[in-house]
Amino acid sequence: MRALIYDETLHLDRAHDEPTLQGDQVLLKITRAGICNTDLELVAGMYGFTGVLGHEFVAEVAEGPKEWLGKRVVGEINVACTECDFCRRGIPSQCRHRTTVGIDRHPGAFADYLALTSRNIHAVPDSVSDDQAVFVEPLAAALQVTKSVHISPHDRVVVLGVGKLGMLVAQVLKLLGADIVAVVRRNKQAALLNQWKIPAVSFDELEPEHAQVVVDCSGQASGFSDALHLVEPRGTLVLKSTYNGLPQADLTQIAVREIRVIGSRCGPFEAALRLLESSLVDVESLIDMRYSLDDAIKAFDHARQPGVLKVLFDY
Amino acid sequence: MRALIYDETLHLDRAHDEPTLQGDQVLLKITRAGICNTDLELVAGMYGFTGVLGHEFVAEVAEGPKEWLGKRVVGEINVACTECDFCRRGIPSQCRHRTTVGIDRHPGAFADYLALTSRNIHAVPDSVSDDQAVFVEPLAAALQVTKSVHISPHDRVVVLGVGKLGMLVAQVLKLLGADIVAVVRRNKQAALLNQWKIPAVSFDELEPEHAQVVVDCSGQASGFSDALHLVEPRGTLVLKSTYNGLPQADLTQIAVREIRVIGSRCGPFEAALRLLESSLVDVESLIDMRYSLDDAIKAFDHARQPGVLKVLFDY
Repeated sequence: MRALIYDETLHLDRAHDEPTLQGDQVLLKITRAGICNTDLELVAGMYGFTGVLGHEFVAEVAEGPKEWLGKRVVGEINVACTECDFCRRGIPSQCRHRTTVGIDRHPGAFADYLALTSRNIHAVPDSVSDDQAVFVEPLAAALQVTKSVHISPHDRVVVLGVGKLGMLVAQVLKLLGADIVAVVRRNKQAALLNQWKIPAVSFDELEPEHAQVVVDCSGQASGFSDALHLVEPRGTLVLKSTYNGLPQADLTQIAVREIRVIGSRCGPFEAALRLLESSLVDVESLIDMRYSLDDAIKAFDHARQPGVLKVLFDY
Repeated sequence: MRALIYDETLHLDRAHDEPTLQGDQVLLKITRAGICNTDLELVAGMYGFTGVLGHEFVAEVAEGPKEWLGKRVVGEINVACTECDFCRRGIPSQCRHRTTVGIDRHPGAFADYLALTSRNIHAVPDSVSDDQAVFVEPLAAALQVTKSVHISPHDRVVVLGVGKLGMLVAQVLKLLGADIVAVVRRNKQAALLNQWKIPAVSFDELEPEHAQVVVDCSGQASGFSDALHLVEPRGTLVLKSTYNGLPQADLTQIAVREIRVIGSRCGPFEAALRLLESSLVDVESLIDMRYSLDDAIKAFDHARQPGVLKVLFDY
């Protein structure tokens, strides 16, 4: 089968071994997949990953128990042990022995087939298209903001960094009725936000301590200090992205102004599917370009360009 | 009157003007005061403060309305405007226009007299001695940890940095029944903790991700990274101290392990007085030495020595 491999270089292996099923795994035939910023970081060598990339996908169950066979599904990316204290507490996404699809010691979805535990798959309702369903994983990550933090409809909220993930976070928070603005640098993003009635502003237009809640999706150290600047005393700063290296952080500000900094990662697939089924989030406008998996290198080159939103593989 | 001034140098002014009362202020005759780490930072020039230092004190009301006259009191340090949004929300300690006694544009208590708004004073019960009452301000700051964060009796808790404040935080958290340990470097601290039945351990004795809650009282950038090392996924890291400069912080860890970082500052005086009245916290063992305000320079030299706990002025 075809598989996009990273092992110091990024290359398409056209004769990769098909996975063999183990334990309660099902065999997934991938039909759609998306490139995420984490993928770009992985192929920049940031996390030392080697193997098949890819963790945002839609698939058909090609092999497995009868109740799943032929079903269209999406899959959670944290493969948990089911036995550690975090699994027993119902937090498998923080399992102490987890592997992560296409990110950490588990083959990914940029391939014709993927073997994945049936515990991780969710059926996609007929009314949700493949193009929508491929956004379930990042949309769930956006929803983890509201799972981690209570945001009141009364709150002033800023989303910093409206790339692929930030655009989903902004839409999810808009649904709360909160007084949300998004800090943008590019016209394309501003036009989309405008379409969704989310005010797009530049950083300089906002007063210091403007917001009760600031969500940093920038992935940059400067985003953290910008967020600190914008959050009011006793306010909440949600960290939604990973950062290259060890950024400097004004920890004294956090103590003196009693800021809450909340890390947030993977989120609830069920809720993401509900929002898509209800057409409450527009993901299709985020699609920048589609490629065949055969053109994976070209697709990555495209995805790396500044300001590009979602690049898909349509197999 | 005598007043200990910092204006690039630290010096005792023996003929400082007595304060004149304004608005709802009362005149406090200071009878006991304590040197805090913030004082040491102020005289190191860290925050650009000039004026009379001192914010931990016990006093007698020498002038003011009849109901207060002659009363033994302690005083909160944040002098709030009563009108801004934070004051109206009942959070005067984060008032947007506040001054802070002996720290920020308000004269301090290392003087014979201090004029302070009557809104900030609390009567000291007869059963609480001056030596105990002088700890109300830092004990309240320690209690702000449990005001900011729910700590369950089931939680594993680590206190990092058991200096003057950390020793109070450790005692307050011990009262919750939680499984608390304190990370110590010095024998003196270990002996006191032992007396309070709080296990004293070295950093290396603790497993990574040992605790649900880590309270960093170290005041050092290394304390923050040590705390990150010790807190488990979804755990809480309470920042109780200020840091010199802009420490580097592994923000990616915060996002990926979904850590909550909670800044915490001044706390509830009423609760601190209740704990002292009930003899539930031992503050007297923290007293290292007493000086007359006449020997203030010597007292500061003493307080600056590594491992020294509380140095008091007994006027």
